[in-house]
Amino acid sequence: MRIGLVGLGKMGANMRTRLRAHDVEVVGFDRNPDVSDVASLDDLVAALPAGQRFVWVMVPAGGPTRDVLAQLATLLAPGDVVIEGGNTHYVEDAERAATFAEHSIGYLDVGVSGGVWGLENGYGLMVGGDAATVERALPIFDALRPEGPRDEGFVHAGAAGAGHYTKMVHNGIEYGLMQAYAEGYELLDAKDIVTDVPGTLKAWSRGTVVRSWLLELLVKALEEDPELADISDWVEDSGEGRWTVDEAIDAAIPLPVISAALFARFSSRQGASPAMKAVAALRHQFGGHDVRPSSPGA
Amino acid sequence: MRIGLVGLGKMGANMRTRLRAHDVEVVGFDRNPDVSDVASLDDLVAALPAGQRFVWVMVPAGGPTRDVLAQLATLLAPGDVVIEGGNTHYVEDAERAATFAEHSIGYLDVGVSGGVWGLENGYGLMVGGDAATVERALPIFDALRPEGPRDEGFVHAGAAGAGHYTKMVHNGIEYGLMQAYAEGYELLDAKDIVTDVPGTLKAWSRGTVVRSWLLELLVKALEEDPELADISDWVEDSGEGRWTVDEAIDAAIPLPVISAALFARFSSRQGASPAMKAVAALRHQFGGHDVRPSSPGA
Amino acid sequence: MRIGLVGLGKMGANMRTRLRAHDVEVVGFDRNPDVSDVASLDDLVAALPAGQRFVWVMVPAGGPTRDVLAQLATLLAPGDVVIEGGNTHYVEDAERAATFAEHSIGYLDVGVSGGVWGLENGYGLMVGGDAATVERALPIFDALRPEGPRDEGFVHAGAAGAGHYTKMVHNGIEYGLMQAYAEGYELLDAKDIVTDVPGTLKAWSRGTVVRSWLLELLVKALEEDPELADISDWVEDSGEGRWTVDEAIDAAIPLPVISAALFARFSSRQGASPAMKAVAALRHQFGGHDVRPSSPGA
Amino acid sequence: MRIGLVGLGKMGANMRTRLRAHDVEVVGFDRNPDVSDVASLDDLVAALPAGQRFVWVMVPAGGPTRDVLAQLATLLAPGDVVIEGGNTHYVEDAERAATFAEHSIGYLDVGVSGGVWGLENGYGLMVGGDAATVERALPIFDALRPEGPRDEGFVHAGAAGAGHYTKMVHNGIEYGLMQAYAEGYELLDAKDIVTDVPGTLKAWSRGTVVRSWLLELLVKALEEDPELADISDWVEDSGEGRWTVDEAIDAAIPLPVISAALFARFSSRQGASPAMKAVAALRHQFGGHDVRPSSPGA
Repeated sequence: MRIGLVGLGKMGANMRTRLRAHDVEVVGFDRNPDVSDVASLDDLVAALPAGQRFVWVMVPAGGPTRDVLAQLATLLAPGDVVIEGGNTHYVEDAERAATFAEHSIGYLDVGVSGGVWGLENGYGLMVGGDAATVERALPIFDALRPEGPRDEGFVHAGAAGAGHYTKMVHNGIEYGLMQAYAEGYELLDAKDIVTDVPGTLKAWSRGTVVRSWLLELLVKALEEDPELADISDWVEDSGEGRWTVDEAIDAAIPLPVISAALFARFSSRQGASPAMKAVAALRHQFGGHDVRPSSPGA
Repeated sequence: MRIGLVGLGKMGANMRTRLRAHDVEVVGFDRNPDVSDVASLDDLVAALPAGQRFVWVMVPAGGPTRDVLAQLATLLAPGDVVIEGGNTHYVEDAERAATFAEHSIGYLDVGVSGGVWGLENGYGLMVGGDAATVERALPIFDALRPEGPRDEGFVHAGAAGAGHYTKMVHNGIEYGLMQAYAEGYELLDAKDIVTDVPGTLKAWSRGTVVRSWLLELLVKALEEDPELADISDWVEDSGEGRWTVDEAIDAAIPLPVISAALFARFSSRQGASPAMKAVAALRHQFGGHDVRPSSPGA
Repeated sequence: MRIGLVGLGKMGANMRTRLRAHDVEVVGFDRNPDVSDVASLDDLVAALPAGQRFVWVMVPAGGPTRDVLAQLATLLAPGDVVIEGGNTHYVEDAERAATFAEHSIGYLDVGVSGGVWGLENGYGLMVGGDAATVERALPIFDALRPEGPRDEGFVHAGAAGAGHYTKMVHNGIEYGLMQAYAEGYELLDAKDIVTDVPGTLKAWSRGTVVRSWLLELLVKALEEDPELADISDWVEDSGEGRWTVDEAIDAAIPLPVISAALFARFSSRQGASPAMKAVAALRHQFGGHDVRPSSPGA
Repeated sequence: MRIGLVGLGKMGANMRTRLRAHDVEVVGFDRNPDVSDVASLDDLVAALPAGQRFVWVMVPAGGPTRDVLAQLATLLAPGDVVIEGGNTHYVEDAERAATFAEHSIGYLDVGVSGGVWGLENGYGLMVGGDAATVERALPIFDALRPEGPRDEGFVHAGAAGAGHYTKMVHNGIEYGLMQAYAEGYELLDAKDIVTDVPGTLKAWSRGTVVRSWLLELLVKALEEDPELADISDWVEDSGEGRWTVDEAIDAAIPLPVISAALFARFSSRQGASPAMKAVAALRHQFGGHDVRPSSPGA
């Protein structure tokens, strides 16, 4: 099998490597000629059999993805299939799928999990789209997903958008899980009678209720830096976490844990919090409580 | 009427002034001779009529309060009444009341709200204890409470402990209210189209659903410092906030807002958050996401 | 002064009454002929002086408001002013203002607070738009706002959208305040030693830190129904609360209290929570903990 | 090796079985004669070699544990070791250890994780106490812990109390993890385009960031009951979750996720929420919003 892959950044390049290792021929295109197999998107399309093409798009969500899809809409032929694997907001998928369908081009949205470890372990895949198109693309998914039974690393989750939706929820859960471990870590770290924090987390690796891959990564991080001395507490967030909470609000679903995890990241990136300045000002007003003067630069 | 008042700190001294302004004679004692009316607790007790004494205790909760109460237990006579107005955890009151009752000494626990404004506005008073003793002490409460109908600034809330319990809940609510205004303030402050933040808060003073005394204080704070430039975001918390959440946990009552307000204060006082370092470390492990190196001193 | 008022529901009808009581002539239009002063929007426009018209729109946000504004765009003349007082999402205002400006028609967005009490107490008003137009409309605002200094019940908060934005934030704060009181109420209600819950809340009316208009309403509610026996715990939410949290997420502002208040309302309206079923199922799986079978209809 | 084991409930009986399967002789005692190996605690002690005894106590925390420990204090000899494996609050351990030390009896506190699966998989073990005593008890721990490297299922976490403390934190984390998955499950369940919820969760088993043992259990639960139709949303909580939040409050550590997970369980067990009745009452007061009358029995 031979497919096209657009976008050869950290994720895309690893996926190309894994696909090739699993006997899928890949024609990769990237704007960076140093990593690209062909000179242009046109060349990529030309290198694949019309009507039977699969083009996997793995570029940043938003503008870049929209640009590539718009070009593909003009280059591809009826029977071809676009697989959109980026971190797109699922709300965009239904219309995209409909637009491609007008030209008899298939469209699948795929959530891809696994990060830098996916090259070796395989990628967890969640797919949205129609069943016949999913069926045709199975060899690609089988090459990318982890070893083991197909249904433990792959799912056809539902209609157009279901791939990105389930990946979004996956990432929302991830936020909550990470924050739960992090709060527990802080409780261990703060307690004088606990003299072996890294060892405690490592001892949870087998047999306990909290064992997980994220726990293994935390154990690994502490083996490299037992007091996390070389890392700041500044934590980025990405679109999926925010979309998850937005979605919950739209659907009137309470989401206390995932939202708290998101807000903790926001807080981590604030210098002086305007809200807490207001609370300090209020305490000063009603109680004559001393306030700390603002530090230079705070 | 003539009463004893032990503890002439910021609150106690103001209360003495208000009591005297309302025709209650006050014999005040404080360890600081500069503010004390008498040289010792013995002298204070001696200056009051045995069996009809009222001694209001207004010293820091915990050890200092316990010390004063222990001394009073040996100095007072049957028929006397102790009024404990400090920020005591209500769980201590029932036993104290019982102990004094063995000596036929009355015991009332009183939550006092109003801060530095109480001198002028009067103090909100919540009282726990038996009805007959509360009745005897009414002239004192009437002098301290705000002008207006008695039941708008005073309540006999229930049995021993009810005064401190209701004051604890009052303060827990206060945490939530302050955080709600503060979050709103931050949203206003962050928005470019809103060009008059202090004016917006001031415009809420009349007619709106959110008008309150705390809002007036926030307006006042912004009149003094329109961007809260001279105040840090470091916010202290006191026992009552913590006890409120502890109480909810004991009683299996969900308390999402008050607990979030308490945790926001904890966060405000942290330098680098160990929990968020752990989240940053995890992100780095699974995604190869860049982390910020820890800043010197963070 | 003579103005048009479109929308004579609960809010609009009260506003008409208050405007008339303050010497502003009002031509009101509503689709319901029983309450309408004129037969059509055309008639309303015709009854006002071209180029000097003020038309206040007070209809449900979304479609109804958009419909009325679209009609007004065709009916009004240069120099006229539209005042949009509904619960519109502020993000719609900038484009609307620009569209009207193309026809030299003024556009002000106004957040109106006060509920059913506004008729008597006046309405808190937050206005977005350009200063000259705001200036022209001041007599209307002065008639609607509460007695007292103008800046305690009215603000020109900023550019187009600032009126609805600040009203949105006002309502977000309101959610947090209400939940804070409610959590405190539950703590009082649950405690055996507190024998006078309504009295305790009433005693907070003067002198305390938590005194507010919402507290007064809670006191009133408990005077009518001391145990809230006749009211269910099902709580609706409106767009402003959701938009407030959405806005915080967009701006990366932590909003733990207001979001918790919103989620508490979502939870109040759920029958059986799918999330908590999942937690129960997990506990059963790992611990053999008994689970309660689902009740019929749950 | 031969040890005593007091308490043969679900956990204790399984542990006895696992110990025996790993060549540790066990003399078990339980108040229930049907499962007990000996007739009394005296008999259990008599069956072990004085000065070299290990007695593992696995009875309910609180009174039952305190009773057994008090009896053992009178029955054991210098050199013997008590291992307390129940769900005890760690704050009790330091004093217990000191008391036993006065009689030259060793005391280890052990957190045991694994639930009903521990019999087969082994139990995760966290131990507090002095190093020499831990060393002597290693053969017992090696029999109970999972196969694999010792440090992946066992840790000497620190001084007296560290075993129960780390187990408490483990359970607190567990609350957060479970709630994170549960919130994600609800988001999947609510979405019409997601037509295979159980399959989506199963597809996360390999390769994804959220893979874990708890996820496997949720997959298993959904295989048994794909819509969780036979399970209610009523979720119990245990001491450890509450203690974890209490601990955070004492240590001024923000714990938004774990506390939210705990509160969600509290909410799940409430019939009508008094807090939400109060919010509904407030909405009715200020806005004339309709409230739902209380349902019979709610």
